[in-house]
Amino acid sequence: MIKAAIMGYGTVGSGVAEVLDINRSSITKRAGEEITVKYVLDLRDFPGDPVQDKIVHDYQTIVNDPEVKIVVETMGGVEPAYTFVKAMLEAGKHVTTSNKALVAAKGAELIALAKEKNVNFMFEASVGGGIPIIRPLNSSLTADEIEEITGIVNGTTNYMMTKMSEEGLEFDEVLRDAQEKGYAEKDPTADIEGYDACRKIAILTSLVCGQQVDFEDIHTEGITRISAADIKYARAMGRAIKLLACSKKAEGGYVAMVAPFLLPQTHPLYSVSGVFNAIFVHGNVLGDAMFYGSGAGKLPTASAVVSDVVDIAKHLDVNIAVEWSSRKLELVDYKSLKNRYFVRTTAEKAAVEQAFGSVEYVTAEGVTGELGFLTECMSEADYEKCAAQLDVVLQMIRVA
Amino acid sequence: MIKAAIMGYGTVGSGVAEVLDINRSSITKRAGEEITVKYVLDLRDFPGDPVQDKIVHDYQTIVNDPEVKIVVETMGGVEPAYTFVKAMLEAGKHVTTSNKALVAAKGAELIALAKEKNVNFMFEASVGGGIPIIRPLNSSLTADEIEEITGIVNGTTNYMMTKMSEEGLEFDEVLRDAQEKGYAEKDPTADIEGYDACRKIAILTSLVCGQQVDFEDIHTEGITRISAADIKYARAMGRAIKLLACSKKAEGGYVAMVAPFLLPQTHPLYSVSGVFNAIFVHGNVLGDAMFYGSGAGKLPTASAVVSDVVDIAKHLDVNIAVEWSSRKLELVDYKSLKNRYFVRTTAEKAAVEQAFGSVEYVTAEGVTGELGFLTECMSEADYEKCAAQLDVVLQMIRVA
Repeated sequence: MIKAAIMGYGTVGSGVAEVLDINRSSITKRAGEEITVKYVLDLRDFPGDPVQDKIVHDYQTIVNDPEVKIVVETMGGVEPAYTFVKAMLEAGKHVTTSNKALVAAKGAELIALAKEKNVNFMFEASVGGGIPIIRPLNSSLTADEIEEITGIVNGTTNYMMTKMSEEGLEFDEVLRDAQEKGYAEKDPTADIEGYDACRKIAILTSLVCGQQVDFEDIHTEGITRISAADIKYARAMGRAIKLLACSKKAEGGYVAMVAPFLLPQTHPLYSVSGVFNAIFVHGNVLGDAMFYGSGAGKLPTASAVVSDVVDIAKHLDVNIAVEWSSRKLELVDYKSLKNRYFVRTTAEKAAVEQAFGSVEYVTAEGVTGELGFLTECMSEADYEKCAAQLDVVLQMIRVA
Repeated sequence: MIKAAIMGYGTVGSGVAEVLDINRSSITKRAGEEITVKYVLDLRDFPGDPVQDKIVHDYQTIVNDPEVKIVVETMGGVEPAYTFVKAMLEAGKHVTTSNKALVAAKGAELIALAKEKNVNFMFEASVGGGIPIIRPLNSSLTADEIEEITGIVNGTTNYMMTKMSEEGLEFDEVLRDAQEKGYAEKDPTADIEGYDACRKIAILTSLVCGQQVDFEDIHTEGITRISAADIKYARAMGRAIKLLACSKKAEGGYVAMVAPFLLPQTHPLYSVSGVFNAIFVHGNVLGDAMFYGSGAGKLPTASAVVSDVVDIAKHLDVNIAVEWSSRKLELVDYKSLKNRYFVRTTAEKAAVEQAFGSVEYVTAEGVTGELGFLTECMSEADYEKCAAQLDVVLQMIRVA
């Protein structure tokens, strides 16, 4: 029997206890031994809950119990999760976490510490919820140079974009709806401003290039400026607007960004709707691949955490190598990225063509008093120079 | 330096040599050591080819060379691949194969032999070409009871169905086109009759249930009877016809089948077009997930083989447990499977309703002199009883 502890008994933490219980027999078979939860660390008590007798309030209780081999961290946020996780690894305990903030900020350091202590630090659930993506990147896509990784990695914003697209609603209306349904938080900033997606693409890029990518370096735009009129133009072009977190090999390294993009119907991510997530990967020999599934939610995310627990149970005496050194990767400036751009302006055609040269005009039903057009493919830097020549730019959305 | 051998220098085998070469530095980094090909077994010689000096014609040369640790089998077919692979494992060499026929027929036995010899027998490339699916099933989806696994696992037929659907062509025309483009073989039987998909779903089902599933037990229908008129009806219903290989948990065990299905636009597999493959998985806690990518082709398939080679290189002294015992799993009779059915008949409405009760009629532009209708949800057995009451059934396609 392998003893585990759960730190943080919120949505995901309680889901982990539930999954270990629901699928006990098959998990035992796969792990080779039964996994039982000895402690649940939380500030609160949970009278009446199945774990009520396991609740502890001091993480040192877990640190000091040599019987606990595996610790699940589902608290969220960098502190105190970082302090707790570090103490667990230093005490020779394996750790798995669903905490993207922790992994993005401290991943390299915790991976190195785990290696030093011959234990494992795993984080499958930190990106894409239930979708297996971290382990496939580490152990399946090993024959390839990954040239691009682009994800719809935030369910809240994808739900909102889908709803705006299907029902022609404005941003504020769908935000209220998402909050009522529990898909968006009371303070939705981290989702709608793209900060959540930014941390996730920082993690994926770090794994792909094997070095530390600081999320602060990634140019990030959210979806707050997307309007019903934009959706009408998108439909007129047979495209969908999605918040993408992307990372590409570029001359001199990697370039990453988070922003809304106009996707064509032929793109594998086009039909990823509602709260679903998907991660598209292009390898130099594999070609295109995509991993799709539930990007959030109690049980899907817990499923990913428990898959780490099983993997750890099978590797109690072995550190599984993860290539992610603490050496910082300087990203290539996103302004060198080349795209086409969809632009809305109140300028006249003559001014547009003087600024951008040849463009492709787009009209959308019911949108008047402005011009919509697609530019040629150009760098962000060149786009900015051209756009600066127009008096008013109402909107710019990149075209994937 | 780790020495490897390739058995079979056809499309995939030469792709393996190419991928090891193209991505040598990153593969070396991930494997921990450089992997070099010492022998290539083939009946032919390849004068002028980079491997010309490595060609051997007798597999015993490889068996008897203790320096060779990893053997890649890309010959195809059960024999002599089985004899060769068995000899390699018995000599203490690790094996990876892309050969679905071998894995479906002898997987359990070769996995057991590998375990006994403390080596690994891997087969990522045997299903879904470059798509990582075998390793995710073994090591990522371990927290779940897999309740359904449904795949588009044959690129040839998916290309043909897509082409029929997009261009309104008849089966024979698209088959010729596929043959001209090299997507279908001269003798296309294994693809168009569903035999290839059948072996692949046998492998996936064996992994999901941990026991031997004999492909001969799986009810298999191909796409040869799909016509341009069927496609017209599908379009009228907003659906696509896809050849699916599926396996589901059912009362008393698992049920599996291969057949064309009508998929709604909301199904993740709906938009999998052309030669792409995808495997949809439903877990009891994960919910829906999908793995998408290039299901065939030289480099994508070689990418999967080489990912096995890297995994083996990281586990030269460790047998990675694979749950697939040789104990045969008796599948539940597919006739207990419940579906809706789309039926075309020359019978009158009165006869249809007498046979099936309440149905939903469908009309397709340009199709006359017959009736098309959707039945209620019922078992295959009940469907057969109802259908037997009609004088003529022109077509029946299941609805997913």
